[in-house]
Amino acid sequence: MCKENSLVEKLVQSNNSSIVLLIMDGVGDIPSEEYGGKTPLEYAMTPNLDKLSKESVLGRHIPVLPGITPGSGPGHLGVFGYDPIEYEIGRGILEAAGMDMEINEGDIAARCNFATADEYGVITDRRAGRISTEKCEEVCNILRQNIKEINNVEIVIKAGIQHRFVVVFKGENLFEGVTDSDPLMEGKEPLKVRALTNDAVFTAEIINEFFDRARKVIKDLQPANSILMRGFSAKPVISPMNKRFELNPVCIAHYPMYRGLSRLVGMSVLDAGNSPEDAFNVYKENCSLYDYAFIHIKYTDSYGEDGNFEGKVKTIESVDKALPILLAKKPDVLCITGDHSTPVPMKSHSWHPVPVLINSKYCGYDDGVRFIENECNKGGLGMFQSKYLINYLLANAGKLSKYGA
Amino acid sequence: MCKENSLVEKLVQSNNSSIVLLIMDGVGDIPSEEYGGKTPLEYAMTPNLDKLSKESVLGRHIPVLPGITPGSGPGHLGVFGYDPIEYEIGRGILEAAGMDMEINEGDIAARCNFATADEYGVITDRRAGRISTEKCEEVCNILRQNIKEINNVEIVIKAGIQHRFVVVFKGENLFEGVTDSDPLMEGKEPLKVRALTNDAVFTAEIINEFFDRARKVIKDLQPANSILMRGFSAKPVISPMNKRFELNPVCIAHYPMYRGLSRLVGMSVLDAGNSPEDAFNVYKENCSLYDYAFIHIKYTDSYGEDGNFEGKVKTIESVDKALPILLAKKPDVLCITGDHSTPVPMKSHSWHPVPVLINSKYCGYDDGVRFIENECNKGGLGMFQSKYLINYLLANAGKLSKYGA
Repeated sequence: MCKENSLVEKLVQSNNSSIVLLIMDGVGDIPSEEYGGKTPLEYAMTPNLDKLSKESVLGRHIPVLPGITPGSGPGHLGVFGYDPIEYEIGRGILEAAGMDMEINEGDIAARCNFATADEYGVITDRRAGRISTEKCEEVCNILRQNIKEINNVEIVIKAGIQHRFVVVFKGENLFEGVTDSDPLMEGKEPLKVRALTNDAVFTAEIINEFFDRARKVIKDLQPANSILMRGFSAKPVISPMNKRFELNPVCIAHYPMYRGLSRLVGMSVLDAGNSPEDAFNVYKENCSLYDYAFIHIKYTDSYGEDGNFEGKVKTIESVDKALPILLAKKPDVLCITGDHSTPVPMKSHSWHPVPVLINSKYCGYDDGVRFIENECNKGGLGMFQSKYLINYLLANAGKLSKYGA
Repeated sequence: MCKENSLVEKLVQSNNSSIVLLIMDGVGDIPSEEYGGKTPLEYAMTPNLDKLSKESVLGRHIPVLPGITPGSGPGHLGVFGYDPIEYEIGRGILEAAGMDMEINEGDIAARCNFATADEYGVITDRRAGRISTEKCEEVCNILRQNIKEINNVEIVIKAGIQHRFVVVFKGENLFEGVTDSDPLMEGKEPLKVRALTNDAVFTAEIINEFFDRARKVIKDLQPANSILMRGFSAKPVISPMNKRFELNPVCIAHYPMYRGLSRLVGMSVLDAGNSPEDAFNVYKENCSLYDYAFIHIKYTDSYGEDGNFEGKVKTIESVDKALPILLAKKPDVLCITGDHSTPVPMKSHSWHPVPVLINSKYCGYDDGVRFIENECNKGGLGMFQSKYLINYLLANAGKLSKYGA
C-alpha cells in the first residue's frame, strides 16, 4: 500500500509539456426516458468533442470505489491524484477553503449557522429565519470586534451566504476530534462540545468558551441571537502537487469550493469567469505560466442536481462550442472528464463510473468514437480508479520515467 | 487497506428496499467447439433474461484476483461482500458448515475419512472401501458413544457421505495451526499431528489423544478400522451481514455447503427445493421478511464439472423459464451472476471473470444486450473484483450514503 503510493513520486520527471484537466462537474449520467433513453452527453450536439474522441483514448473512472457515491471533495481529490480514502477533508475545512480563507496546518475550521434561541437558550430556528447575507456580514462583524482571541488562539470569522458563516481557530495545540454543538433539531439548546481524544481537550475548551462569549455578544440581537457549529476539522496533511508530481499547477474555476480544494493541493488559482468560453480564454492568456491546468465547469453538476436535462445538455454544448479556444493552444495532454456522475433522473451525485477522454500524441486509441458513457465502456483505458488518472496524464506528458530496468 | 474495508460499513443506511442475488453456480464459461463455438449462456434460449439484460447494466467480476481459480468458499464470500483473501475458510470448517453443524468461535473442525489399516496400523485403503453412508453412520455412533470429551474438550462427530465424516472439537484454548494426520498415500501410518505454533500445542495433544482412543475403539471393525484427519480449522472471525451491511439476509439454497457458508456470514436459511421454480416460489412466499435474498442454483456448476454442455444449457433455460416468478415480486435490485466460472471444456472451476447483470431503477445501462460473456465485456460495470459487488447492490438499493462533502 505504502509502496504503491510512493511509486509515482519516485518516477516523476519534470519537462516542458503541458497538461490540461477539463472537469465538467458531474458529467456522467444514465438514460432519461423522456429524452429517448439518452444521456445528456448522447443527446448533446458536440461536433468538436466528437472529432476529438476519434483521436483519443476513452474509458471510465471510479471516483472512490465501485458503488461509492463521492461528495465534491473526494471526487476532486481523486482526479487530482490523491486517494480520497486516504485523504479525508472535513466539512469545516471544505467550507473554509471554499470561502477563500487561508488555512494552515494546525488550524481548526467549523461550519456555523446563526440561529434563533428563546430566553432560555433553546433553539427555536436553526437558521435564524435565513437572514440576508448582508445581515450575516453585520453580525459577523460584531463577533469579530468582540472576540479576537481566546487563550492565545486567534479567532477568524467569515460570513457566508444567508445564515452561514465559518470560524477558523488558529493557534498551538489544536486538534480534530470534537463533537458538534449543533443538536440538528429545534427545541434543544446547543450542545457542549466534547473532546473525543485526549489531544482535543484544549480545543473543546476553546470552542465552548467561544460559544459562551459569542452568545453573550449577540444575545439581544434578533433573530440571529445564537450560533450552531459543526464539522470541526483540521487541514489534511497533503503533499502539494509541485512536490508530489513536480508540476506547477493552476486552477481555473469560478466556484469557491473548487478553488479552495485546489489550494489544498497547492494550486495557484485564477477566476474562470462565467462561461466555458471565459474559462478557456483565461487558460489561453495564462497557459505559458503553468504546466498543469485544472479547468472547472460547474453547471453540468448543478443542472444534474436540479433534474434539468436540457440545462445539462446546453452546458455540454457550450463547452463543445468553446473547445477550439483550448485546442488552439495545443496542450500536450488534454483530459476531459468529470469528478463524478450526477444523473438527471437521480438529481444527485451517484456512483456511476465517469466517462473520461485523454488526448495526446501517444495516447493510443480504441473503438470508442464519441465521448459518451457507452462508447467509453469500450475504451482503451477500461475502468480504473480516479486516483490513477494522474498517472495517465503524467505518462502521456512524458513526465514519468520507466519503473525498473 | 483498513480504511477501505471499513468504508462501506460507515456509509451504509438501512431502508425498505429489497435486494436479490441470484447465483447460478459456475455459470461463466468458454466456447465449446462441438456446439458451434458457443458458451452455454450463448446457446441457451433465454427470452426472459434477454429482455431483462436490455434494461440492466452488465459487467464481469473477478472472484479473487485475475487468474485465480476460487473454490466454492472464496467464490461465495466474494459475492457476499467479504474479501476472500482476507477471510479464509478452512476445509474442516467448510465441511462442518456444509453439514449443518453448529460452529462457534473457538471450535476446531476437521474433515475425516474412515480408512482400513493392517495389523501394524499402516493404511491399506484411505477410504475404507468407500463404505456405505449407513455403515459410516454406524461407526460414527460407536465413536460417539465411546468418546464424548477429552480434557474438557467436547467431541462432536457427524457422519457424511460414504467414508466421510467430520469431527468438531469444542472447548477452551483450541487454536488453528496443526498439521494433518492424513499421509495422503497408502502404505504409511497416520501421522502424529504437530502444532505449528505454541498456541496450538494443546490442540495437537487433544487431536492425537482422540486418534489413539478412536483407533482403540474401532480397531477390530472391518473395513473401517482407522481414521485420517485433515483441514483442522477454526471459524473465521466474520462480522455478520446484518452488522456490516445493515441487511436482514436470507439464503435460499438446497445444498448444505452453501447453506453453511451463508450461516457463517449470518444469513437465515430456507430450503430451495429441487428446481429454480421451487427456489423462486420460496422467495415469493418469504420475501416480505427479508431485505436481502441469496438464491443458489447448483446444477450449472455440477454440469460444468461433468463436462455436460447440454445439462448446463438446460439448467440455464430452467432458470430463465422460472424467472417471471421472481420478477413478479419486483425486488428493487436484482443481480444475476455466478460465484465463479466452471467451463464445460475444462470440467472444473476456473479463473474466467464471471458475467454479472444488475437491474434497478437507477442501474444505468450499456450496449450489452444479452447476459452472455461477450456482451458483459461491453458492460457499464466493466471488470471488478467480486468483493465490490455488494457496494453496487447497496448503492442501487439506496442503502449507501454519500462519501464526504
